[in-house]
Amino acid sequence: MPAPTDPRTGLPVVAMVGGGQLARMTHQAAIALGQSLRVLATDPGESAALVAADVRLGDHRDLDALRALAEGATVVTFDHEHVPTEHLQALVADGVRVAPGPDALVHAQDKLVLRRAMAAAGEPQPQWAEVQTLQGITDLADAVGWPVVVKTPRGGYDGRGVFVVDAAEEAADLLTAHGTLLVEQRVALVRELAVLVARSPFGQVAVWPVVETVQRDGINTEVLAPAPGLDEETALAAQELAVRIADRVGVVGVMAVELFQTADGVLVNELAMRPHNSGHWTIEGARTSQFEQHLRAVLDYPLGSTEMAAPVVVMANVLGGAASAAGWDGPGLDERVHHLMAHWPDVKLHWYGKGQRPGRKLGHVTALGEDLAEVRARAVAAARYLADGEVDPAFAFAQEH
Amino acid sequence: MPAPTDPRTGLPVVAMVGGGQLARMTHQAAIALGQSLRVLATDPGESAALVAADVRLGDHRDLDALRALAEGATVVTFDHEHVPTEHLQALVADGVRVAPGPDALVHAQDKLVLRRAMAAAGEPQPQWAEVQTLQGITDLADAVGWPVVVKTPRGGYDGRGVFVVDAAEEAADLLTAHGTLLVEQRVALVRELAVLVARSPFGQVAVWPVVETVQRDGINTEVLAPAPGLDEETALAAQELAVRIADRVGVVGVMAVELFQTADGVLVNELAMRPHNSGHWTIEGARTSQFEQHLRAVLDYPLGSTEMAAPVVVMANVLGGAASAAGWDGPGLDERVHHLMAHWPDVKLHWYGKGQRPGRKLGHVTALGEDLAEVRARAVAAARYLADGEVDPAFAFAQEH
Repeated sequence: MPAPTDPRTGLPVVAMVGGGQLARMTHQAAIALGQSLRVLATDPGESAALVAADVRLGDHRDLDALRALAEGATVVTFDHEHVPTEHLQALVADGVRVAPGPDALVHAQDKLVLRRAMAAAGEPQPQWAEVQTLQGITDLADAVGWPVVVKTPRGGYDGRGVFVVDAAEEAADLLTAHGTLLVEQRVALVRELAVLVARSPFGQVAVWPVVETVQRDGINTEVLAPAPGLDEETALAAQELAVRIADRVGVVGVMAVELFQTADGVLVNELAMRPHNSGHWTIEGARTSQFEQHLRAVLDYPLGSTEMAAPVVVMANVLGGAASAAGWDGPGLDERVHHLMAHWPDVKLHWYGKGQRPGRKLGHVTALGEDLAEVRARAVAAARYLADGEVDPAFAFAQEH
Repeated sequence: MPAPTDPRTGLPVVAMVGGGQLARMTHQAAIALGQSLRVLATDPGESAALVAADVRLGDHRDLDALRALAEGATVVTFDHEHVPTEHLQALVADGVRVAPGPDALVHAQDKLVLRRAMAAAGEPQPQWAEVQTLQGITDLADAVGWPVVVKTPRGGYDGRGVFVVDAAEEAADLLTAHGTLLVEQRVALVRELAVLVARSPFGQVAVWPVVETVQRDGINTEVLAPAPGLDEETALAAQELAVRIADRVGVVGVMAVELFQTADGVLVNELAMRPHNSGHWTIEGARTSQFEQHLRAVLDYPLGSTEMAAPVVVMANVLGGAASAAGWDGPGLDERVHHLMAHWPDVKLHWYGKGQRPGRKLGHVTALGEDLAEVRARAVAAARYLADGEVDPAFAFAQEH
């Protein structure tokens, strides 16, 4: 049976579970391809629900809501990894095309599944153990030294569900709550890298240049493309690693491979199987954005060029700061956007339309150019101005150039 | 009274009259700015109505529909120039911000108003006359030679309402129908150029590089940016002319100045006061797209950089061709999109979601690069393949590079 298309246009209907900023930006990409993204949102005020024409309200843990979403859609895909595997299997049994499929997606949902798969494949990763007892944590620490990193197998993102512990007892409550934990060596990091790759059902793979991701409090807030000073050999090896993983887990769509760079090479940290924060720079910075590529991949269209559009691209996230706090009496959001445009006429804004709260990821900005220090200063200053309503010292530098 | 904003986001609400592809692409740009374009469409199947979250159905000639559209909007703007001037004046009298305002917009609605304004300003334009009689046509032809160009003052676009006549009698029916006509010298063209400019209420002006526009049957189907081989002096003069006109007519928003290039310099042909076909190349080809810039301008935000993103950018429209005709049994639209992506992985597609009919403007593609001949061949071949389902001879050339 051919997959359904939109009877009004003859083109596919991609349905995305989740109404956050990733769905919002995927809708922008869908518009260019003649499509209109169908979105399953839990609230009409969600980021994508504010801008998409075809919004279904429902919970991603409700199989009936998922089935209604899939009705008449060409393919079902995701803005997050929180859909229960059994629901995805039920959709597949219904004959729905789900991309990535449940067998692939579980590698991004369950960190233990990923660790086992990487071990079986012989891919580089931190030393790890699956533990059901506090003694299990101590056993790994005996081998790799304290502190160790304790992770809940499921449910973590943006640093949640990740704990650095100096003694097994610190994880006692977590172990009681989850029964099984993943415990990992704390790696001596040079920095964090990410490789974004897209894979189609046909098996075509496209990979963007390796980027450096800079975190603040466990949240990725800056992406430098390409990763500064990364030697060509390591970059190529990281890209090949990402492609091997994509093939091995059989992902369909965009996948981000988060890597630790160490003195001895790169180690696999985590996977995300959807457009990812580390790929927002591709909207202006690459010939094909991660959002368009995700649509191409899940639709089994040929993939687009991943060539960079400028020598240096920097993305900086806007996390809710002083200007989102209660009692803020500085310039309001619209005024800050106005100032942003006045000061940085070539910084590109992406605002997610979410309510402003301190620490919340509210938007991002992208700057392009030739010189990393200048481009980065410009992007970071612009993002911080939106967050805090204050001009950062870096601003003076950015203005000079 | 401050202009209304969206209570959910604190950001502006731009309302656009008209639900065509210009509104569709403006919505994409609005999403990045944290906004959601409100659209007045006459039919739910219109290009923008398929993708926007806030669609009002109504006629642009119905003042009540316009008033309902304006309710709670920060500013009202346009995807076409067909709104009656008296309705716009009524909105302004209501206290609605309308951009461009009716006094500016009339220069794009009425070709006689434009000719008078350009004459008063001493700007270069073809010789012309306002006529109520056939003798008037002959009088102008006596001065400039046959044939002459007869135009209906209002309602023409994409070559409609424009007639080349060899004798006054050929315009007899037209004169009876309209009462007053514009007659113009038929200019000895070198080619057609266009200058896109944006102006904010504050008076800030931004201008993109001059482009060459290539027409087929009176419809612009290719845009070459920058205009090939245009000497710097003429380019600068054309940009300055566009900026002077923008200031003189007091436009707010994006305005396209269509120019005839002759052996003696450039002449003003027509104005469009909205994003324009000659500016579609800016989506990927310039740091700020015409759609984002239009939103910035009508909101009195500072304008963005108009710098080009590549040395050469070519936009080619897809007009419904063989593949839109009745009885077509070649590859369907989705299959053609698939092939397009396979053959031209770095050509960017913009499909408008409209029903396919021969001659209808269904979408456009954009190619970027270094070499005009290669980039143009690539864009044109891709557009023709979408239109006709056949690979153009130019394809072979594009593939070689």
